[in-house]
Amino acid sequence: MSLEATHELDRLFCPKSIAVVGASPAVEMIMMDQGRNYIKGSIVQNFRGKIYPVHPKAEDTLGLKSYASIRDIPDEVDLAIFTIPASAVLKVMADCVEKGVKFVHLFTAGFSESGREAYAEIEKKLVRMAKKGGIRVVGPNCMGIFCPEGGLAFQPFFPYAPGPTGFFSQSGQMAGNFILKAAAKGLSFSKVVSFGNASDLSSKDFLKYFYQDEKTKVVGSYLEGLKDGREFFEAAKVITREKPLVIYKGGRTEGGSRAVKSHTAAIAGSLTIWEAFCKQTGIISVKSLDELILTLSALQRLPLPGGKNVAIIGGAGGGSVTMTDMAEAEGLTVPRLSEETITKLEEIVPPQGTSVKNPLDVGLAAMGGDSFMKIINLLRDDPKIDALIFLQQLGLFRKFGGRPAVNFMVEMTLKARDNLKKPMLVVLEKDDAFGGEDSVKAAEGRYHDENMATFSSIELAARVVKNLAEYQQYLSNQG
Amino acid sequence: MSLEATHELDRLFCPKSIAVVGASPAVEMIMMDQGRNYIKGSIVQNFRGKIYPVHPKAEDTLGLKSYASIRDIPDEVDLAIFTIPASAVLKVMADCVEKGVKFVHLFTAGFSESGREAYAEIEKKLVRMAKKGGIRVVGPNCMGIFCPEGGLAFQPFFPYAPGPTGFFSQSGQMAGNFILKAAAKGLSFSKVVSFGNASDLSSKDFLKYFYQDEKTKVVGSYLEGLKDGREFFEAAKVITREKPLVIYKGGRTEGGSRAVKSHTAAIAGSLTIWEAFCKQTGIISVKSLDELILTLSALQRLPLPGGKNVAIIGGAGGGSVTMTDMAEAEGLTVPRLSEETITKLEEIVPPQGTSVKNPLDVGLAAMGGDSFMKIINLLRDDPKIDALIFLQQLGLFRKFGGRPAVNFMVEMTLKARDNLKKPMLVVLEKDDAFGGEDSVKAAEGRYHDENMATFSSIELAARVVKNLAEYQQYLSNQG
Repeated sequence: MSLEATHELDRLFCPKSIAVVGASPAVEMIMMDQGRNYIKGSIVQNFRGKIYPVHPKAEDTLGLKSYASIRDIPDEVDLAIFTIPASAVLKVMADCVEKGVKFVHLFTAGFSESGREAYAEIEKKLVRMAKKGGIRVVGPNCMGIFCPEGGLAFQPFFPYAPGPTGFFSQSGQMAGNFILKAAAKGLSFSKVVSFGNASDLSSKDFLKYFYQDEKTKVVGSYLEGLKDGREFFEAAKVITREKPLVIYKGGRTEGGSRAVKSHTAAIAGSLTIWEAFCKQTGIISVKSLDELILTLSALQRLPLPGGKNVAIIGGAGGGSVTMTDMAEAEGLTVPRLSEETITKLEEIVPPQGTSVKNPLDVGLAAMGGDSFMKIINLLRDDPKIDALIFLQQLGLFRKFGGRPAVNFMVEMTLKARDNLKKPMLVVLEKDDAFGGEDSVKAAEGRYHDENMATFSSIELAARVVKNLAEYQQYLSNQG
Repeated sequence: MSLEATHELDRLFCPKSIAVVGASPAVEMIMMDQGRNYIKGSIVQNFRGKIYPVHPKAEDTLGLKSYASIRDIPDEVDLAIFTIPASAVLKVMADCVEKGVKFVHLFTAGFSESGREAYAEIEKKLVRMAKKGGIRVVGPNCMGIFCPEGGLAFQPFFPYAPGPTGFFSQSGQMAGNFILKAAAKGLSFSKVVSFGNASDLSSKDFLKYFYQDEKTKVVGSYLEGLKDGREFFEAAKVITREKPLVIYKGGRTEGGSRAVKSHTAAIAGSLTIWEAFCKQTGIISVKSLDELILTLSALQRLPLPGGKNVAIIGGAGGGSVTMTDMAEAEGLTVPRLSEETITKLEEIVPPQGTSVKNPLDVGLAAMGGDSFMKIINLLRDDPKIDALIFLQQLGLFRKFGGRPAVNFMVEMTLKARDNLKKPMLVVLEKDDAFGGEDSVKAAEGRYHDENMATFSSIELAARVVKNLAEYQQYLSNQG
């Protein structure tokens, strides 16, 4: 299968003109309020095209001239955003058809996901009208587009520097959380779309778009169900050979499936079949939003590991034991190092209260001077090791050595990374109980500035190594 | 079986006089340094008994008169703490026997856990000497005692208010992390002991002690292996009927077991057998330090649930779906509420964009006024619900409603708790990406002051509900 370029969606993500229907300073609903923020916080500040508020009373909004109907706008309209009651959508869609609007995005909820036949019927009718009029629809029941390059956002505090991460989500809440949490891990975004009920544009369309979009290097998704499963998986098979695709599937349990139905009217389907599909198509399937974000972070910042054998550094005593347990429980192996490596490590690491077999407990002494770099290089050269998981208890460093100790650790780690051809996963625990949160936060910022991935727990770091190793294995099998 | 009172250990936790052997401002090793902090940071400030530094050169330490040998101390010695090289321990133990010391605790490492026969032999000899001389030994290779009531600690920043939590740990590092992390969740401690190689006093002894110790209401433990498995489980069976016992077992995997051997020379044993033992004896078996702490927190602050059916509140959209998935993946059920409850909820919660069937997405409107209390009361009275998991995105509240919104939520939750006979698990995500960390931290502090448990993730809250429900089930089966 070859994927034709769906460039038509470029104009959705980077429209030249927008009509916001229902925009009014007086609206009181949360949904409306989000629509309002949309204009106030985001578009007005960053959008470089034309904005046309549309409101029955044609009251000027935020200093922009308002129109009573979309038909009155004296310009082409690329994208019309609906923040109006469900009862009004058919009328406005008719106006859009007459006007020749290219895309419609509906914040509006209360259609097929309500479980009521009459409302589901309106949604169907809406899509039929749009199709006939040549309009593509995003939603209803969704947050729409976030595209830094195009100047679009759906919350006022999204980050505006564009980057390589693409994301498509059936849930607006998950899309919003994804953006904020991923930004906190230093990620930046090409395009994010929340598409709700997927009445017209759906997963497969966005997947194909991201495949041909040169700005997008890695693709993530939150999905609840698929309407065109076969087409989606065919497309996935093509994309995963060039860009990694990481999907968090909601509705993994009986209760979750029930919740999916009243959320986006999707059918969650069997988890077993889903996981089998992912295995066959090279999709990286994850089980939480945090795992999704950290896997995407690793995919754009770390080399892929050749296998699942890890060296564990930075633990001590019981911590070394439990870190090893956690890594192996996630499907990794923490092997004894090569005898040659052990012998050389014993020359560097003082014998008392340390361990150099893996897990490594090298003591504080071996963290200073150039011992650290020597240790990392020995692990790099040990063929039994595919990846390094490195717990940095920076709160503890701060407590005993102040900021200089923290900075020293961070700079040394960055230097070691340059030298390494294996992935090194730096774990910074937020809640390590040693305090010094400011120092830890500053260190995390420094790592992200240097495009270094950080991980919030050993479990997540281990799961990410596994995800990357299995993706690498999939690619090798494809030849 | 009846457990005889092992009051003899009272004097270990609350000694009247201590000798610190090896104490000197000049010692350079980390282990020694901890020994030094022990005196400087903790004992001198809080210990109300006598302290006798012992050092070959008899240099006065921190203003305390020093002695060249323990035999020179002109007083009884309840506890002698060794911070000396392994090569010196037999000589000092001989002095202790001669002096009639009651307890010896050895920080000193480098014995059986080293894997070297000669050093293991010293450990055996040490214990034989002690036994003959009537001395009980803690360690070697451990951090010893933390007992606020007795004024003992092994790190200078431990909290000094005594409380109901007892803990015994084979790992000193895990004991230290446990204390700091549990304190951050508002827990306080009766006695904590790190006992390392367990050459003499071992798990079973501390378990029996906690059984009869009136100050201890809940018991936690980190274990790597058991030397007297049968006796331990017999004791566990008795204690769990009166005090909950939560154990985190290290060495759950092949790699972890290997790490255990070089850590405390213990044999980790089969995980399957361990889990079966726990089931039979009512021990709550956990898989991480965080789960251990949060389970202990819940056990002392929440009523036990009658089953595993939970109501989920505070999610929205995709968040409701994924919270439900997480709860059910941990073994809980998120059932549809009773029809009666649903009907009554529909009178309170506005219909647009909400869901009242469970998971509950009640919208912001229903969080205000007395709607919230009505909702909680309806869930309290629904026989299909055993426990409530309540995600509070306080960072989001802070962003949109400022501190007053956060405070309102917290006070309303505390009020609702008084009314409720089911456990309500409040989840505060540290990393919710909405910022307002100070507000969240303040709210968490307020909850802990009011003896309300907080949970750092949905997964952990779900796992704790499961732990509590299974413990309740075990107790019921015992009749």
